[in-house]
Amino acid sequence: MTITPDTVQARLDALAKPPGSLARLEALAVELALAQQSLTPVTRPRRIVLFAGDHGVVAQGVTPWPSAVTTAMVATILSGRASSTALAEAQGADLRMVDAGMAEPPPGPHPAHYLAAAVARGTADLSLGPAMDEAQFDAAWALGADEARRAVTEGFRLLIAGEMGIGNTTPSACITHALTGITADTATGSGAGADAAMRDVKRAIVADAVARLGARRDKAALAALAGFEIAAMAGFYAQGAAHGAVLLLDGYVTTAAALIAEALAPGTRRRMIAAHRSAEPGHGAALAHLGLEPVLDWGMRLGEGTGALTALPLLDSAAAVLSGVATLAEIMGELPPETRSETGT
Amino acid sequence: MTITPDTVQARLDALAKPPGSLARLEALAVELALAQQSLTPVTRPRRIVLFAGDHGVVAQGVTPWPSAVTTAMVATILSGRASSTALAEAQGADLRMVDAGMAEPPPGPHPAHYLAAAVARGTADLSLGPAMDEAQFDAAWALGADEARRAVTEGFRLLIAGEMGIGNTTPSACITHALTGITADTATGSGAGADAAMRDVKRAIVADAVARLGARRDKAALAALAGFEIAAMAGFYAQGAAHGAVLLLDGYVTTAAALIAEALAPGTRRRMIAAHRSAEPGHGAALAHLGLEPVLDWGMRLGEGTGALTALPLLDSAAAVLSGVATLAEIMGELPPETRSETGT
Repeated sequence: MTITPDTVQARLDALAKPPGSLARLEALAVELALAQQSLTPVTRPRRIVLFAGDHGVVAQGVTPWPSAVTTAMVATILSGRASSTALAEAQGADLRMVDAGMAEPPPGPHPAHYLAAAVARGTADLSLGPAMDEAQFDAAWALGADEARRAVTEGFRLLIAGEMGIGNTTPSACITHALTGITADTATGSGAGADAAMRDVKRAIVADAVARLGARRDKAALAALAGFEIAAMAGFYAQGAAHGAVLLLDGYVTTAAALIAEALAPGTRRRMIAAHRSAEPGHGAALAHLGLEPVLDWGMRLGEGTGALTALPLLDSAAAVLSGVATLAEIMGELPPETRSETGT
Repeated sequence: MTITPDTVQARLDALAKPPGSLARLEALAVELALAQQSLTPVTRPRRIVLFAGDHGVVAQGVTPWPSAVTTAMVATILSGRASSTALAEAQGADLRMVDAGMAEPPPGPHPAHYLAAAVARGTADLSLGPAMDEAQFDAAWALGADEARRAVTEGFRLLIAGEMGIGNTTPSACITHALTGITADTATGSGAGADAAMRDVKRAIVADAVARLGARRDKAALAALAGFEIAAMAGFYAQGAAHGAVLLLDGYVTTAAALIAEALAPGTRRRMIAAHRSAEPGHGAALAHLGLEPVLDWGMRLGEGTGALTALPLLDSAAAVLSGVATLAEIMGELPPETRSETGT
């Protein structure tokens, strides 16, 4: 049967609790049940795949951090002592790290959960011309799609994409401006620490890069604005959705990837849940464009999947309510105990 | 050394991430570190103790539910199919159930995690006179204190009290009105489903019961307003704090118990973290009186510890950031790798 908001709410209202008393947790249960099309959705096993990439536009001074920090942070992730790995371990998420196009990969040897698959050693500078060509976009997309297929084949039911890429809020702002219609000003935030002057530079680059496309929003146009990790995440989402996985979005950059996925593979958004609204000023509009309401609104802005991993256990609780609570009819003795296992789920 | 907000924030700012980028999660890490007085706080193992009690004031029509529902819900909890048990299982919390004073205990045989320790078979009607005498209050307090001592002795580091007791938002409103100074009107909400007429009755009872005490706020005065499960939770908090456990509050009823604990054992609040702000209109003021900021503001109003269990894994993430993330100095190579284990925590 098709799971609708009404069927899920009816199930929640039948449970042994005052109707609506779990409030936002019930709304999240509805969202999760819809995304998985099940009245007893599961959130385990889950995997986070982190995609790394570098950005030619960093040369324009859009961020205080050099691309070398991408390499250093990926090395930290591989050492298991990054924010994302700490949270993934705390929340029981399997983690993989994929080089989709870093300027310089971290020194080896690499652990088994690392995949060296750079499309190129960083994108071209999107302020001067297309960040990548269509063939590169296709390669990055395929890389992400392969990761989603692999995860689903290995049994993972809930997928998270996270990213590491110095400068990647600039392409994300371009994509959000291009696909949602919000202004370049609203779409452009401070990323990982741009000051006011940097933000002015960034805003002008975003406006120009999108203006250069005219009305075009086809794949080549999106490729001109994207990053390798962003295109890979778009492919990851589209393929994950096609396989029925629940997709838990992270921050602004992953949501830009989600916008591309929905543009090129319409319907992908029906599998998405928005973990949080970040501090980036355009993120709320991007989520609204996808029809998503964030679970948390905590002003987080780290990336690496950290917002998704923070919200993840709230989905576990939402799933537990649907799967683990008896109905009022059962507890009031209207049904004999031996029927509970048949009617409880 | 004494852990202060500054020492915790300094540690967070040294980690390999843009300073402040985890925003509210960092604030929660500060709160947790302060409550446990450790820069590497732990949230496991954790236990929730559910205290049940009934209330003579139910005879006045303050709730649409009869006291028999307390018994039915405790039976559901013992069957492992209540909201609280589903969430406790999902979030890895050990659970105990204590009858602090139900009108009618659930039929046996009872599992090992159930303690039959009723102070009396329900309180007296607080609208007609004291809900309990001081000796009963002491007995309930001791029951909760014993549970806290037992939990700490068994190694639990984070404690949650939850409650089940039809009618118990009425004594909670009395206690909150008496101890925080908010009006009876603000203190009185809809509980588990009181309609407007019931709420009018409830509000008048709350105002009268507190007015009858005059300026008295001593133990006997608080006993006159309390419930057995509420007094037990107050003792649980006070003793848990004395033993250094972190106390994660749930909703309005547990916060009323926390107000009593702080009134009779000042300083208890320094071990408290507020999981959420419930739909009860007086809850925010009660938390503010204790100096607490809720983690979630989700409009939940079920009780049974469900709000605390929902917020609990967010504390796990906060703890993981403090314990599991390398410092920027470490990853930028300023320190050789072999020193990481010494400086990382």
